[in-house]
Amino acid sequence: MTSPLAAAAALLAQRGPLYLDDIAVGDRYASGEHAMDEAQIKDFAAQFDPQPFHLDDAAGRSTLFGGLAASGWHTAAITMRLQVTTGLPIAGGIIGAGAEISWPRPTRASDVLHVVSEVLDIQPSKSKPDRGMVTVRSETRNQHGEVLQLSTVRIVVPRRPGATAEASNAGAAS
Amino acid sequence: MTSPLAAAAALLAQRGPLYLDDIAVGDRYASGEHAMDEAQIKDFAAQFDPQPFHLDDAAGRSTLFGGLAASGWHTAAITMRLQVTTGLPIAGGIIGAGAEISWPRPTRASDVLHVVSEVLDIQPSKSKPDRGMVTVRSETRNQHGEVLQLSTVRIVVPRRPGATAEASNAGAAS
Repeated sequence: MTSPLAAAAALLAQRGPLYLDDIAVGDRYASGEHAMDEAQIKDFAAQFDPQPFHLDDAAGRSTLFGGLAASGWHTAAITMRLQVTTGLPIAGGIIGAGAEISWPRPTRASDVLHVVSEVLDIQPSKSKPDRGMVTVRSETRNQHGEVLQLSTVRIVVPRRPGATAEASNAGAAS
Repeated sequence: MTSPLAAAAALLAQRGPLYLDDIAVGDRYASGEHAMDEAQIKDFAAQFDPQPFHLDDAAGRSTLFGGLAASGWHTAAITMRLQVTTGLPIAGGIIGAGAEISWPRPTRASDVLHVVSEVLDIQPSKSKPDRGMVTVRSETRNQHGEVLQLSTVRIVVPRRPGATAEASNAGAAS
């Protein structure tokens, strides 16, 4: 049996990591799929968002959600899992500095989620020439193509070792 | 033993729920505390953010984090738990439409988290006179007062039943 750490390290090594220098505005990535179910929704809610509409279908019916709905933070966490395991092969991993996030519709127990992402912006760091900030916009969709979550995340991405010298001539912001 | 659903319903009933009409810009709320530990960080990471620096202290040392760090989405999920259970007694629960979030510093295994929140904006809905949108800015801090997460969340909040007629005269946006 592989430990989670060994599996994570193997995954990083295997996915052909992208450095800042390998990424272009407009690049697109599509993740694999994650099937939600009732047990996952209720487990996450019991731990992190214990509200009736995330714990019970009947309790959700009289609310804005009209039935059992996943916590938005659960959708966000699954989106991260999909990005990390199949979506965005960033060198050194996905380290977010911040995000904007919205949930146009709730995630349901029957949803199968996947994520499509597009690079919006790339800013080499002025003060730290070994890295830059990549802005990625992602849609988390279900099997019907409905958008469950929109997010725009700023990710810290290292430059390819050796590419640092050129970077300092680029004169980009921050 | 109480079920998570019964506990959640009891909590909502007990905390003196606030309607839109009860909330003012500048209102502040402070949550209780949540003690992080290594096991929680690794469990969350294994499920949702399986990257070496969220799974192992030694693996984290050579990264930007300099050691084991919680996933930002884990900090976000704990922030939600603190808000739901002790932070923001909104009528009907906390239903977020969207958020901006940033992580100025990583959450560590030794951190004890709490959340302080302030109401930034209140907009009664024009199209749906039974509700409005409240914007809340929150800081998730550790026991040293260091800010681990900044978030600004838009929450759907119902008007007090019977207050709807006045609301439609207010002429507020959206």
